[in-house]
This record gives sequence, structure tokens and C-alpha cells, in this order.
Amino acid sequence: MKVKVAILGVCGVLGQRFVQMLNGHPRFEVSSISDLYLGKTYLEATGNKWGKGSGGFDENVPDYISDMEICSATDIDRDIPLVFSGLPPNVAGPIESELAKRGHIVVSKAKDHRLEEDVPLIVPEVNPEHLDLIERQRKKRSWDGAIVCAPNCTTSIFSLPLKPVIDNFGVENVIVTTMQAISGGGYPGVPSLDITDNVVPYIGGEEEKTRVESKKILGSIDKPAEYRLASYCCRVHTIDGHLECVFVKTNKEADAEKVKRLMKDFPGTGLYTGPVRPIIVRDEIDRPQTRLDRLAGEGKNPYIGGMSVTVGRIRNDEVFGLSFLSLGHNTVRGGAGEAILIGELLDREDYV
Amino acid sequence: MKVKVAILGVCGVLGQRFVQMLNGHPRFEVSSISDLYLGKTYLEATGNKWGKGSGGFDENVPDYISDMEICSATDIDRDIPLVFSGLPPNVAGPIESELAKRGHIVVSKAKDHRLEEDVPLIVPEVNPEHLDLIERQRKKRSWDGAIVCAPNCTTSIFSLPLKPVIDNFGVENVIVTTMQAISGGGYPGVPSLDITDNVVPYIGGEEEKTRVESKKILGSIDKPAEYRLASYCCRVHTIDGHLECVFVKTNKEADAEKVKRLMKDFPGTGLYTGPVRPIIVRDEIDRPQTRLDRLAGEGKNPYIGGMSVTVGRIRNDEVFGLSFLSLGHNTVRGGAGEAILIGELLDREDYV
Amino acid sequence: MKVKVAILGVCGVLGQRFVQMLNGHPRFEVSSISDLYLGKTYLEATGNKWGKGSGGFDENVPDYISDMEICSATDIDRDIPLVFSGLPPNVAGPIESELAKRGHIVVSKAKDHRLEEDVPLIVPEVNPEHLDLIERQRKKRSWDGAIVCAPNCTTSIFSLPLKPVIDNFGVENVIVTTMQAISGGGYPGVPSLDITDNVVPYIGGEEEKTRVESKKILGSIDKPAEYRLASYCCRVHTIDGHLECVFVKTNKEADAEKVKRLMKDFPGTGLYTGPVRPIIVRDEIDRPQTRLDRLAGEGKNPYIGGMSVTVGRIRNDEVFGLSFLSLGHNTVRGGAGEAILIGELLDREDYV
Amino acid sequence: MKVKVAILGVCGVLGQRFVQMLNGHPRFEVSSISDLYLGKTYLEATGNKWGKGSGGFDENVPDYISDMEICSATDIDRDIPLVFSGLPPNVAGPIESELAKRGHIVVSKAKDHRLEEDVPLIVPEVNPEHLDLIERQRKKRSWDGAIVCAPNCTTSIFSLPLKPVIDNFGVENVIVTTMQAISGGGYPGVPSLDITDNVVPYIGGEEEKTRVESKKILGSIDKPAEYRLASYCCRVHTIDGHLECVFVKTNKEADAEKVKRLMKDFPGTGLYTGPVRPIIVRDEIDRPQTRLDRLAGEGKNPYIGGMSVTVGRIRNDEVFGLSFLSLGHNTVRGGAGEAILIGELLDREDYV
Repeated sequence: MKVKVAILGVCGVLGQRFVQMLNGHPRFEVSSISDLYLGKTYLEATGNKWGKGSGGFDENVPDYISDMEICSATDIDRDIPLVFSGLPPNVAGPIESELAKRGHIVVSKAKDHRLEEDVPLIVPEVNPEHLDLIERQRKKRSWDGAIVCAPNCTTSIFSLPLKPVIDNFGVENVIVTTMQAISGGGYPGVPSLDITDNVVPYIGGEEEKTRVESKKILGSIDKPAEYRLASYCCRVHTIDGHLECVFVKTNKEADAEKVKRLMKDFPGTGLYTGPVRPIIVRDEIDRPQTRLDRLAGEGKNPYIGGMSVTVGRIRNDEVFGLSFLSLGHNTVRGGAGEAILIGELLDREDYV
Repeated sequence: MKVKVAILGVCGVLGQRFVQMLNGHPRFEVSSISDLYLGKTYLEATGNKWGKGSGGFDENVPDYISDMEICSATDIDRDIPLVFSGLPPNVAGPIESELAKRGHIVVSKAKDHRLEEDVPLIVPEVNPEHLDLIERQRKKRSWDGAIVCAPNCTTSIFSLPLKPVIDNFGVENVIVTTMQAISGGGYPGVPSLDITDNVVPYIGGEEEKTRVESKKILGSIDKPAEYRLASYCCRVHTIDGHLECVFVKTNKEADAEKVKRLMKDFPGTGLYTGPVRPIIVRDEIDRPQTRLDRLAGEGKNPYIGGMSVTVGRIRNDEVFGLSFLSLGHNTVRGGAGEAILIGELLDREDYV
Repeated sequence: MKVKVAILGVCGVLGQRFVQMLNGHPRFEVSSISDLYLGKTYLEATGNKWGKGSGGFDENVPDYISDMEICSATDIDRDIPLVFSGLPPNVAGPIESELAKRGHIVVSKAKDHRLEEDVPLIVPEVNPEHLDLIERQRKKRSWDGAIVCAPNCTTSIFSLPLKPVIDNFGVENVIVTTMQAISGGGYPGVPSLDITDNVVPYIGGEEEKTRVESKKILGSIDKPAEYRLASYCCRVHTIDGHLECVFVKTNKEADAEKVKRLMKDFPGTGLYTGPVRPIIVRDEIDRPQTRLDRLAGEGKNPYIGGMSVTVGRIRNDEVFGLSFLSLGHNTVRGGAGEAILIGELLDREDYV
Repeated sequence: MKVKVAILGVCGVLGQRFVQMLNGHPRFEVSSISDLYLGKTYLEATGNKWGKGSGGFDENVPDYISDMEICSATDIDRDIPLVFSGLPPNVAGPIESELAKRGHIVVSKAKDHRLEEDVPLIVPEVNPEHLDLIERQRKKRSWDGAIVCAPNCTTSIFSLPLKPVIDNFGVENVIVTTMQAISGGGYPGVPSLDITDNVVPYIGGEEEKTRVESKKILGSIDKPAEYRLASYCCRVHTIDGHLECVFVKTNKEADAEKVKRLMKDFPGTGLYTGPVRPIIVRDEIDRPQTRLDRLAGEGKNPYIGGMSVTVGRIRNDEVFGLSFLSLGHNTVRGGAGEAILIGELLDREDYV
């Protein structure tokens, strides 16, 4: 029997991606959807906006959800154990808390709870053991449910390849420059006049997130990782896919060839939405490229790519010793896909 | 009386920019032009390609050069003291040597001679004293003329703001990530299918140039600067303007506010094509932006912008201590404009 | 002595273009500016939005207006004879009426009054005689001032080359397909996700305007022109410049070569902002092109291009007999520039 | 048992699309591939160019063809009945003739043979009966094989929706303006500097093709259709998908609602690659849009969209009476997909 799930903020870019990726899901069944357009069907509510906020959508709303009625987040049935939240920041916080209090497990893409000490911030291939925080959270907050967070897209995309590096060589310093897609700004989001023939070298709050969130993910359950990190996060004119240039000072010398092997061998989760190879390493000098590689990553779901991170140009340089490029799909791996993967992990670990 | 000048490779993107920027020049008069299309007029030879390889050109070839006949590089009159070379790499080398031998001073944008020990590699605001190498070059090579090189565009754009930093604090490490415009690839250059909705994180030879050329420019006439440098050079979808994210480890602590002041006060050359403020510092959190700032920079020439570098987001970070963004126009400051500025410097210093 | 002018909606895309094009104007002096940000200086009010809504702006607000204080539209001094309105549709209507009633001559780019029978809708090179409607308007409305309208950008760009055709051959049918720039949608305007790698084949109200406005402009002062017109107006991914494909069935046979000559010879106004050749005809098979030709057009103002319309591919086809392409700059010729040109015409004709 | 097929020009954009669309095909088995890179495997030959010339490709060459060796076109085994040709124009002509003479049935996307009287030019949903020309061709040329052509992409995309119009109302005049994608220019194809922030209103030979090819397709096997047609074919900045604005003068009055119904009901072929609904009609005022609708069209092949044409904005206008927009995927419906569909039709009709 399938696990019933709800989607919050189901009409937005993230919500639409949840709708697409949960279509035909073997374990999860969308039973309740919430957004501002109360009482409308999903088709009526999303209609004209469907598929506009990111790439790779079919031209029509999937049949399975077309006539489902939008309800309020707080009207979600108590018998739905798992809730995916695509709510916007600041709005998400109190609603997610309320639902967790009522007994739901909320997997959230919003930033609001990410940095709370007893909230797991999870990249399933990197720190699944942080789910143990759920017990701590429930005890502390006297909740039946729980909140589990997926990280900011940018952070997720470089934390994944950083994991085998930190595990094998230790990391002292990280410098990251990102070239992020417009779909990261939501819809309508970035004005076309702002990004056509342009780069906008600032995305509000993003650089702080790369610094603080990555340390939480790559640290132990009790303590953030201790490297120092500086980044510039830039918006470039791509639809989907964040490309990140990463320079890493390791504690032990990290031979580029060895790093390459470790990344190639980095294991997947075996979960439905998780790719067989979470890190794809390309050897071509000019890869990864945003448009060519953002949909890489095969798992058990034959319809969806974009769950792998593609790494390339791994090399030993004269400053930090190690540098590489990491590319991921911001609304799949760095978005709804990561949340669904966390949901699948929670399911396997019997939390739902 | 004006100084006669010649332009080599006059039909290409660089050549066209020379043609545009020397239109109405108060000191230089274009007297000879060379390219492959021997015997044709400039209009016939360039015709359909005029203005296509970069932004900001008038829709028509300027009148002054329209009917001038294209000759071979080696047919340039001996009485033309100054030659601007927009020749492609590898082609440039032997032709420029031949012309220098014949007595011309060749200011080249090609890479071929840049790293030769007795060839000055000049950013006029940064290392004008390197022109002293001309004497050494003439002596060593028994030439009447000389070769003087302008650096690679990317290098020029971060070397300028790095100058006050190295002078005041010393520099140990530099990490640079660049987001470069398509006009850097020449015309026809980058295929549209390669860059639309894409980032190409590799530009052949570019990263090596940032490393080696910047050390030569920022070093003394006898010895390169001794910092270490690593970079990723990426092509993004902008027409003109390279945006560069620069992280710098200084020897002495460099307070961001102090750096800002030093950059703002960095003096211009006073030359016709040189801007009053070679480094423009912007305080907005989201500047410089490629499309908005690439044409910044007023000098005595009222028609041409793009000779200043715009710096922004100067800050103290937790890794290297200092980071900033630098933006410049690759075919003006990093292209023909820099060569013309070198020509004006040579004129003022009585080399021509 | 200069004529004092005011600008309404001075912070928007149109308003900014007025500010730029009136900088250093030999006859007009901006004395009053209005927008929503009462009491702020122009720099404070526009600041971060300056230059973002169209191309070709300097990176900074011009000095002359930087410290001017924003006032309310209804607080404009009575001694300012001429008011340029860049107000948004629906907002513009009552304010412009109020100002005309008070004695100002308002030149408006808004649609609100365009189709009123006693309001002149002017392309200065096409139907300057329609200014006679001012007397009729004043009499009918008992106003001291008047309202004069500039047409919709798209309409202006094909009406200009249609004028010599209708005058010489008569016009029965017109079919137009447009490829319009994103700056036509204002700022922030068109979302980047809507236009990247996309065409949006609909712009609200635009097709109706091409039909009704062009007939008013090309008709007599008493009666619209009688041709039939159908159009599709599409948004494509260009920053500035509307390219229009025009198919025309003439009453008398219109030889392509003859049409070409008539367009080339079509006279300018001799006014400061008006180009010497309002219609530039190009012979290349692949012109006009949006980026290459949108800034064409030299007048007495050396700093501003974009006031000419560029026509190309004039030919005799097997359906209607005549077809051609017309390209114009939507925020210059089809925007503030046309309004300023109307202002200059009013000045020459002693209306102000 | 599967039918063996060969692909000519297998490394180009068209060839790659054949490779992708024939992957796992239930009736066709790729047994031979040809291109210039003799003796190399497909992976070696295509390698770095794979997936760059159009959208929607996986990041890697499919396994089934990766190690297949490239041979010369004239070395194709005689027992391969069906050959798909993605050869470039002018090259294609003699090679295709030679292969047809040897007994192969060649389905070609090249223009070389399209207009020959005895060569069927086929859109399978529109004029399958033109395949009868094969007998005539064989008799006349004494060939065992045959040449069958697929039309130019642009033509295909408006001929499909024009079919129910001509059948039900008759057609007198057609005016078409197209906005075509860069992938239509092949790879490397259109320079990025030519199309960024630009429209290029000319594509060599394209307008003539829309005129002559559409009349052949929509005519009888013996005589072209007799309407008159004029078009402007423009390149806009989209990756895939041609959007076409079509104005039609019908013989009998064509009510827009009735046209809509006829198009919606237009039947598919029932073939594997053919969509259930070859013409999708959308009711939204702003559709079809290139990025949102180019991949529309479900058939029996669950992996490939892009075989339907999407029509929208069907209306009765004041000039011709009928106008609509038609959008199709130029490298799928207008490319390899159409050729494969022709191949499937030939298979069903027992030609292979």
C-alpha cells in the first residue's frame, strides 16, 4: 500500500516539480494539496502558469492531479503521514511547525527551520545519519511529527562532491563561485531585462547559506564542519542548472586522480528517486556544461533525470591544491527531487 | 601634425574596434590597413561583417576608412612609425617581428610575443615603466623598431584593481573565476547552440594566461610577481564584458574600506583614450553588472566608454580576507582600447 | 531662451528615456518632474532601477537631474508650457486631462486619449497637419492647453514606411507580423523564464492598436484610412527594437525599386531630434537586424541614434505584390523620442 | 523480425536525432551508419559533438550505437532495405541516387531530390497517397530502390494544419511569417553573436521552399496546389521549435470555430512514431509558445515528444478571413522524426 503524501505550495515552481516527480511514484500517493487558491482544482489554480517556471515539464498538467481540489495547509488530513513543503520562506516556518506538532513529518525546501539545532538538514547520500535528530527534536518540542529540511540548492550541489573529499583528506578552506540559473528565482522571478546579456553577481542570502548550511551537512550530528568558506553567488542566463567552481584546501594532499576515483565510486542510496551514481565525473576538458549535463543521472525512475551532480575539471592547482567544477539541477537535485529523496529515506527508515 | 598609424588584421573584431576608436583621434591618423583581402576597399572587405563581432558599433563603416585599400602587412610604408596589430595568434608572431625589424613600433594584442623576456607587457596605468624593456629589446635583437604587447583581456581586467592591492598590502594567493562574453571568441566564434541556456567552463589557454601574464605585469621589469594564482575561465551568455570574481590573500591585512579608497583614488594616465578614473568602485550590493557597467569610463574621448574597470562587492571574507568583483569591456579595455592607450603612452614618452 | 518642460512618470522606462534624451537639449529645459516618490530626489527615487529597463543608458543618472525633487503631477508650475507624459495607461487619462485643462500642452505616450476624435495622434514625419485638431479640441473642451498623443511603438514603426506607399499607390490590405523586444513590456516587465528560449505570440491590446491607430495616423484629419489590417504581435528575445514583416496590397501596382526610392527620399522634419533620413533603406538581403540597426538614424543630436526606421527586403511577391521589413527602436522612435519630436514640432509651429 | 536500417550523415544534428529516435525502435534496427569519419566508432566520431546541436538529448551517446563503426555511404550492405539520409544538401543528391539505384529505399531530409516530379514529398498524415509515385519513379529510372523525401522543416509545420483547411474550404492565398530556431542552422551553425539580442530576417532558400514544397505536398500526385504564397522566414533566439504566423484566404468562408474542430479531429497515422493527435489545438490566447509546446505530442513511443504540431489563436480577421499560429519541433517533426514516420509508413505499406 502506498504512503499518502501532501504537497504545500503546490502551484509554485517547486510545487509543480513535486507534482511532476510524484506522478506514478511507486510508494507515494498525492492525497492532499495546498496553496492560496482554496477550493479551486489544481488545473484551475495553476493553469496558465504550469510549466513556465523551470524546464522539462510536459505541456499539460498531469491527469492524476488535474481535478484535485486545493485546500488550506492546516486542513490536511491527519492520516497523511508525509508532507512535502514547497512554501516560500517566512511563510513556511509557522505552518510547518504547526503541521509537525499535529503529527505530520514535514520535509521542507524552505530555509526557515534549516539551521535549528534539532532539525536535520539532509542530503541523503551525504548525511543520512542526521535523521537521528528527529528523536531529539520530538523530545525537545513534544511533537508527534517532525521537520526535516533539504538544503539550499547551491549548497546541495557542492556538498555532495565535497563529501568524499572531506572524508578522505579533510578540508580546511573552500572558495566557491557559482553561476546560477534563473529558475532559482522562482516565477515570475528574475526580470528578463535584468539577465539578458548580463550577469547579476548577487543573490540575496545565498552566500551565507553556502557557508552555514554546508558546514552543518558535512559536520557531525553535534557539530558543524570546521573549514572556512567564502563564495560569490552569481545569476547567469541559464534556465536550469547551477554550475559551481570549487577550490578546496585539504588537510592531506589530495591527488586529482584519486579524488576522481573517490567521486566516481561514491555510492547512491538505492532509493527510487536516487541515482545509481550521485556524482558523475566527466573527463572532457569543457564539461560539465549547464545545458548538456543538468539532466544527468539515472535511477529507478526512468522518466526523471537531474538527480546526479556532474563534476569535471578535477585538478591540482598551485593555490589550494584541489579544484573542480560541480553542476546540478537546481529544481530537481537542488529542489523537489532532494525533498522526495529524503521522503523515500524516511520511508525506508520507518519514520513514516 | 598627427602620427601615422597602420592597423593589421583590420577586418576582424579587434580590427574593427581599432577602426572605430581611431575615428577622429586627435593624435593618430590611420594611413595603412592590412588584412587578407588584398586590393579591396575596407568597405568591400568588411562589408557584411561590420559591427557583428561585438557591441556598440554604428550600423555603417566609418566614412574615413570606407574607401581605403587593404594592403599586405609587409607592404606598410616605412614612414608609418606605429602599427596596431589585431592579428590572430600564431599568424601574428613572425609578421610582427618582421615589422619591428624594419623599424616600426608594433603594439600587439596577440599572445605570441607577450611572454618574451625583453618584450614589455603593458597595462598603461599599472606598469608603464616596463616600456624601458624596449631599449633592452632593441639592443638584444638589433632592431630599429620594437614590439610592445597588451595583455589578454581577462588578465587586464583583474590586474588593474590588483595593482593598488599588491602595492599596499602585498599579495600571496589569488583565486579568480571569470564569466566571459562571447565576443572574446571572435567572429563567427562561439556557436549559438554552445552558449544559449548554457555555460562553457573552459576557454583554451585562458587560465594559463591569467597566471603567467598577470605576474609579469605586476612584477618588476626584471622579475615576475611571486604570488600563486588559480583560475577557472568560463564563457557565459553575454555579448561584451568579462565579470571576474577575485579572492586575494594579502601579506598585510587589507581592510575592505581602505581597499575601496585606494581603488577609487587610483590615478589615470591623462591620455586621450585613458579614463579619468581607471577603476570605478560601486557601492551597490549587486554591481558591477555586465550589461550596465561594461561601457563605464569617461576620458577625453567623448564617444567611447568602456575603458574603466568597475569593481564592486569589496569585502573581507573568512578565507583569504579580501575579495571583490571586477568587470571590464573585453574588446575595449581588454582589446583595442588598451593597445591604443599603449600607443598614446609611447607617443607621450617619445618612442614614436 | 529655453522652453521649460515637465516629465510625468519620470522614474519608469519611458521616463528615464525622456531624461536621457532631454539631457543637453538645445530648446527644452527640464524644470519639473513627477512620479509616485514625492519629495525624493531623482537619484533617490530611480537609483537602483536606472538604466535597467532598456539599452544604451549611461551607468549613472545624468548630473542635471540627479538632485531634482519629485513632485506630484498636479503640482507642476503653471508657467511650464510643455509636459511629456510617460505615465502608465489608465493612470494617464485623467491626469493628462487635468493638466491640459490647466493650460499645459501634454504630449503623451499613453494610449488613453489616442483614439479620441479631437486628439491628434502624430508621427511628425507622417501627419503633422493633424496638429490642427488642437484648435478643434480646445474649442470643444474649452481648454487652454491640449493633449497630443504619440502612437503605440509598433504602429509608429510600420506607419512611417507605409506613408509613401499609401500616398503613391493607395493601400487596400495590410498584414503585419511583429517580433517585439522585451523592453516594450516595461521594467520589471517580461519574466526571464517567459522569454528565454521562447517566443510569446501575444501582447495584450497590441494587435488592435496596430489596426486602429495606423488608420487614424494615415487617414485625413477627418477620416481614418480605409485599408483592412490584420496582425500577430509577438514577443521575442531581444532587448530593444521591434522588427515587423509587412505585406501590403496596393491599389496601383507598386514596383519594388520605385518603393525603395520613395522610401529613401522620404523627407525628415529638420527638427533637432528628427533624423535626416527617417527611413533608412538597406540593400543587404539579411537586413534590417534588430541589434545592428535599432540605433540607426543621425540627426542634429550627435548623442542619440534610434530615431530612424530601417527598412529592408523590399520586394514584389506573388500574393499582395509588395512586402518589406521595418525595424525601429521601440523606446526611442517608438517611445520618448517620438514624443520629444512632437514637442519640437509644437515648438516650431508656435503652439508652446 | 526487425527491418535493418542505415543512417547516412549519422554524426550531424539530424543524424544524432535519428540515433536517438531509433533507440529501442520496435520495427527498425540500425545496422549500418555512415559519415566522413571512416573506421571510427560512433562514439569516437561524434564524441564531443554529441547532443550539442539541438535540445533533449541524453548527456551520453546511447549504448546501442556507441561502438558501431562508421562506414562509407556506398559500403552499406545490400540487404539493408531502408536508408535514412541526414546528408547535407548537394552532397546528398548523387549518393542517394546511387543507393536507390542499388536497390535501397532512401528516405531523405535533404532538399536535393524534393522537387523532382517522380519523387514523393511526404508528410505522412497529409499526403500518404503520394507514395504511389514510387512506382512511376522506378519505372522511369529503372531503379530497384527509390528515393522518398521529407519536406523542409518550416514547410512541414504549416502544411499539416493547412491540410484540413484546404480540404474543407479551399485555399487561395497564404501569407506566412516564421520565427525559426537556431538548431535549424545545424551545428556549429548560427554564430552566437549573430543571434543574441537579435533577429535575422533571412534564411537562405527557405522562403522559396515554403512556396514550392507546400504546393507539392498539398496538391494531387499530378499537380501542385494552386494557391499563391508569400513568406518571410526569420531566425530568432530559440534553441528548437519553429513558430509560424499563417494568414489564409480560403475559397469558402472558414469559421474559426469550425476550423478549430477540424484541426482537433485531424487523424493520426497510427504508426509508432506518429502522434495520436498530429494537430494539437490550444485555446489559451498566448499559446503555442516555443519552449512550452515544442515537445508536445504523444504517440506509442513513450520517450519522444515533438511529433505534433501545436496550433493556436485561430481566428477570423478582417483581411483574409482566417489566421492562426502553428508551432512544431524542427529537428523532430520537421526533421528526423518525419523521416522515420515516412519509414514506418513505407514499412506498413510493404515497400520495405
